[in-house]
Amino acid sequence: MVCVILVNPQMGENIGAAARAMLNFGLAELRIVNPRDGWPNEKADAMSAGALEAMPPVRVFGTLQEAVADLHFVLATTARLRDMVKPVYTPPLAVQAVQEREQQGQSAGFVFGAERMGLVNDDVALCQGIINITTNPDFSSLNIATAVLVMAYEWMRAQAAPVQTGAELHRKDSPPALQGDLEGYLERLLAALEGTAFFRAPEVVPIMKRNIRNIFVRADITEQELRTLQGILSALLDRGSGRSPP
Amino acid sequence: MVCVILVNPQMGENIGAAARAMLNFGLAELRIVNPRDGWPNEKADAMSAGALEAMPPVRVFGTLQEAVADLHFVLATTARLRDMVKPVYTPPLAVQAVQEREQQGQSAGFVFGAERMGLVNDDVALCQGIINITTNPDFSSLNIATAVLVMAYEWMRAQAAPVQTGAELHRKDSPPALQGDLEGYLERLLAALEGTAFFRAPEVVPIMKRNIRNIFVRADITEQELRTLQGILSALLDRGSGRSPP
Repeated sequence: MVCVILVNPQMGENIGAAARAMLNFGLAELRIVNPRDGWPNEKADAMSAGALEAMPPVRVFGTLQEAVADLHFVLATTARLRDMVKPVYTPPLAVQAVQEREQQGQSAGFVFGAERMGLVNDDVALCQGIINITTNPDFSSLNIATAVLVMAYEWMRAQAAPVQTGAELHRKDSPPALQGDLEGYLERLLAALEGTAFFRAPEVVPIMKRNIRNIFVRADITEQELRTLQGILSALLDRGSGRSPP
Repeated sequence: MVCVILVNPQMGENIGAAARAMLNFGLAELRIVNPRDGWPNEKADAMSAGALEAMPPVRVFGTLQEAVADLHFVLATTARLRDMVKPVYTPPLAVQAVQEREQQGQSAGFVFGAERMGLVNDDVALCQGIINITTNPDFSSLNIATAVLVMAYEWMRAQAAPVQTGAELHRKDSPPALQGDLEGYLERLLAALEGTAFFRAPEVVPIMKRNIRNIFVRADITEQELRTLQGILSALLDRGSGRSPP
């Protein structure tokens, strides 16, 4: 399963246009995080030219974290390359990566930011990679529905003529962790760190959290690895709770 | 030079969205044939997000024939495959064909029909080939700006990573005829045919004209060949005007 996730979209027209573009090119799962004007939205319905009725019901979430909790692989479209270490995909390579995941039974998502603002760094930090759409440097501002269209079009384009790739499918016996499970681990880890000397100044806590999250998200860890991490954390917490070192 | 030609567009919003999509992906020459609401158009300006101001002035024409008169190679985007013998291109192959023309100093155009109606057969007959954009068969109706976007995106995509083609560039010493020159020839030919037994019933004349035009357009003839055709026509007319056969 592959879904499109719009974060904080403002204009209903853009949501509708995005839905129409998705369904034109065979993507049918739309998720929306915190739409400015609520949901459902009449302007979105009108602009979708019937797409919103024809596709499965849109799912609305309060945060991007919740919206990606049941996905394995999430990529953020963003015009600016961030101050974060993430793999950067072109649209066709992003589609290829998602198709490889799908063949392994994994679910994936393409994430799009709001009009003008785009995605904030904390949203990007939740994603395993960045999709960079090449545009005219002198006129680069893409409408949100345009960015969705590019990815949907690339999706259909790859279905029509599958990319021949010699890359071996990997990790078949050890699927990647669900995003929600990873977030659970991160929450647990961060809660454990709070109040320690590690969180020296309160103002750096959010940045520190993001940096930690980036490490684990970028690592694209497996279920087995996540169980190991949880076990390690449990062991450390257990140890700190009173038992003396061996 | 590559231009986008919109035929009989109705909504200014769609013209504006098409202009924005074009400039986002590096296409800057927009021509409009017979826009329903005239030109300039405030809604188009607003929707273009500055693209119409940033690109060269839009050129407006009364007919598609006039709009393509100074072009060498013209392709029509159309959802339905017509009852005409034309080469059918995918979007990437269309871009590749146009790039090869451009490398030979030729000018080209992508033609798009009106909302709902699309292009009429007489418009398609003016074009050397058809571009077919693969869509979801259950939801295939593309917004006009979406179709423009797909071609503009493919244009930028090919610039970013040029298609490696082993196909040899041909006809370097014998450029293809300008569309306007070919039309001049066709008009002359058709005028010559009118009133002859060849045009038996008046109701079939338009179809016959279209079929003749298709033959020559499909042949993608060179300047030299056109001069030859004109010479042949002159000779025949001259002969019919009184001189006896040798």
